[in-house]
Amino acid sequence: MSTLPLARRLQNVETSAIRELFKLLGKPGIISFAGGFPDSAMFDVEGLRQASAKALAEEPGGALQYGATEGYEPLRTELAAFMRAKGVRDIGPEGLVVTTGSQQALDLLGKTLVDPGDKVIVEGPTFLATIQCFRLYGAEVISAPIDAHGVQTDSLEQLMAQHRPKFVYLIPTFGNPSGALLGLERRRKVLELAVKYQTLVVEDDPYGDLYFGEAPPPSILALTNEVPGSRELVVHCGSLSKVLSPGLRVGWLIAPHELLGKAVMCKQFSDAHTSTFAQATAAQYLKSGRMPGTLRQVRRAYAQRAQAMGDALQRELGDAIEFTQPRGGLFFWARLTGAGGRIQDAGEFARRAIEQGVAFVPGAPFFATEPDASALRLSFATADVGRIDEGMARLKKAL
Amino acid sequence: MSTLPLARRLQNVETSAIRELFKLLGKPGIISFAGGFPDSAMFDVEGLRQASAKALAEEPGGALQYGATEGYEPLRTELAAFMRAKGVRDIGPEGLVVTTGSQQALDLLGKTLVDPGDKVIVEGPTFLATIQCFRLYGAEVISAPIDAHGVQTDSLEQLMAQHRPKFVYLIPTFGNPSGALLGLERRRKVLELAVKYQTLVVEDDPYGDLYFGEAPPPSILALTNEVPGSRELVVHCGSLSKVLSPGLRVGWLIAPHELLGKAVMCKQFSDAHTSTFAQATAAQYLKSGRMPGTLRQVRRAYAQRAQAMGDALQRELGDAIEFTQPRGGLFFWARLTGAGGRIQDAGEFARRAIEQGVAFVPGAPFFATEPDASALRLSFATADVGRIDEGMARLKKAL
Repeated sequence: MSTLPLARRLQNVETSAIRELFKLLGKPGIISFAGGFPDSAMFDVEGLRQASAKALAEEPGGALQYGATEGYEPLRTELAAFMRAKGVRDIGPEGLVVTTGSQQALDLLGKTLVDPGDKVIVEGPTFLATIQCFRLYGAEVISAPIDAHGVQTDSLEQLMAQHRPKFVYLIPTFGNPSGALLGLERRRKVLELAVKYQTLVVEDDPYGDLYFGEAPPPSILALTNEVPGSRELVVHCGSLSKVLSPGLRVGWLIAPHELLGKAVMCKQFSDAHTSTFAQATAAQYLKSGRMPGTLRQVRRAYAQRAQAMGDALQRELGDAIEFTQPRGGLFFWARLTGAGGRIQDAGEFARRAIEQGVAFVPGAPFFATEPDASALRLSFATADVGRIDEGMARLKKAL
Repeated sequence: MSTLPLARRLQNVETSAIRELFKLLGKPGIISFAGGFPDSAMFDVEGLRQASAKALAEEPGGALQYGATEGYEPLRTELAAFMRAKGVRDIGPEGLVVTTGSQQALDLLGKTLVDPGDKVIVEGPTFLATIQCFRLYGAEVISAPIDAHGVQTDSLEQLMAQHRPKFVYLIPTFGNPSGALLGLERRRKVLELAVKYQTLVVEDDPYGDLYFGEAPPPSILALTNEVPGSRELVVHCGSLSKVLSPGLRVGWLIAPHELLGKAVMCKQFSDAHTSTFAQATAAQYLKSGRMPGTLRQVRRAYAQRAQAMGDALQRELGDAIEFTQPRGGLFFWARLTGAGGRIQDAGEFARRAIEQGVAFVPGAPFFATEPDASALRLSFATADVGRIDEGMARLKKAL
């Protein structure tokens, strides 16, 4: 066939510049800070092996048969307890739906809520696959500016008043790519805006458990207790990908009752249900009590690497770069200052860096609108301290 | 919030009548022929346990980390070999993409191909979740009539000429709900129509391996060798759900190169990738060489049950019902004849049957257009011969 009769919605998205860059990462000897992955070396393989064996031994039918679209009941029970332990008071198994990674939660929100031409406000910058996911449903995605303390709520209010979006999407805790942490007062303000404008707020929270020192403020969902009328306006996406294993593809969606029902209907036609084999394994793992220990270990390792990267960035790049030291998550978000006439275009810098054997991701593609060409994202998650130091020395050469 | 700002596409679908019926199945003592599930008792639990342990032991990173959207390479290799063994000559790992069950393949086809108002031709009757899935993307779904030998190609051609559909969707081998087997000549004719009208044909094939006696004719995909120009017009959806385990959610999509690329892009924003844990387990299972033995066992059990159900249907219901004995798959498709003034409405019959402690699914919802109120679907997969006989005796009472 000469030309495929493709749907018009595909014209709204394109293969990302980042994917093109990733093709270069196969080069031997490259030190990569480009990924958004957790470190495989940190996976609790033995714990997951036991959990999976137990799932197959105790309830092989449940682990291998078709399951409810809403999710495997024992996992929903564990996840509800996990959320209650993080300060979400009024949540039971029926209040959440298991999704095939939190990416599917985003897809279901697009499917249930977005008509072509609808506006959605996100942070500038935000997770690239979020932008593309919503655009596939025809959304016009608008960026709200952020700083080191997350989205600037004054600007957010202006944009909400002006655009009346279908919803606002935020990664308030150690966001990707920003690493930023939305402060407590701003969290409350976001909830007040949700109520004032009767607008849904989607809180995507895959990184919230990865804090280095003090725990972050309660999630926006947990804070709905404090802002009357806000609970029915908050959607929350959770995930085991960054803390346990992305390969399970286990995420969850918490949403107002009616929306959750519609999401389940859509999920039925998206993939029927999330792998019960993966769900039963995750349920057994959470039940085993190993999660707190795993979290402690992961936090400690990432905290050490983040410290090493911050120190090395300052040491090697000095005033050529500016950034805020992240308090959790996987990422540094930095800007090339151009000080002393040095390079200020992060795309060009990325190309030079690859030549020197080190990789990171330029920041521009993370903006739905008004890209910042001087920004870049560096992940410290998958390299140990020695590699981080060596990588930063190479970055200096690229400068 | 008083009213959710739902997307308009949700108006195209509704919670199915079948789901409502399923809620009644919890009644104690019910013998159910209503499901579309394989029998859990037939799952090779020990084989899957070994496969999963091996996956975690040999390549824990691959099984637990993020993976390529296209699929886990060793699984793609195994699946390509699986397809070659079924007569598809020109297929390698790069020619297929792993999907989260074949339901996701349908979703990706809807996403990549269907604009609101586009027409899609399906069999009347066909898989209910197919109709709903395509309607969510705005498709107008049109039924082509079938008989015991599958879709009637003369009618199909008329509909193709009249409606110029985006694509034609068929379950040619032991279709759900029809159980029908599309004959060899009709398969060739379908390919000729694809070429004549330059229209994609989607072959959904989750049941093809579940034959009872002689193997069915080659798949439409395998037959593209015989019809010049047809290979680039055929899409094929495969699945391990009915032969190994639905809980893995491992299916695959074979499509023309450009379409496969677009499906991968869409999948990236749907769920990033299918569970690598499930994929690595499936790959190890296929590599272990246990699949042929599992298939032999499953075929034997279902063949016996199908025979028992056919015999009992004839014995208990006589001329009140007509059907063709299926040669494979999981289903009987039958029509109430109304002979002797007996009941002819399958919905009413289903309600009476539940009162007698036996369940099946009325056939009308399986039609995108022009439902047949006298049709019904009975699955013989999950009841042993004794339960089948008892269930049929109850059906007689309901009559």
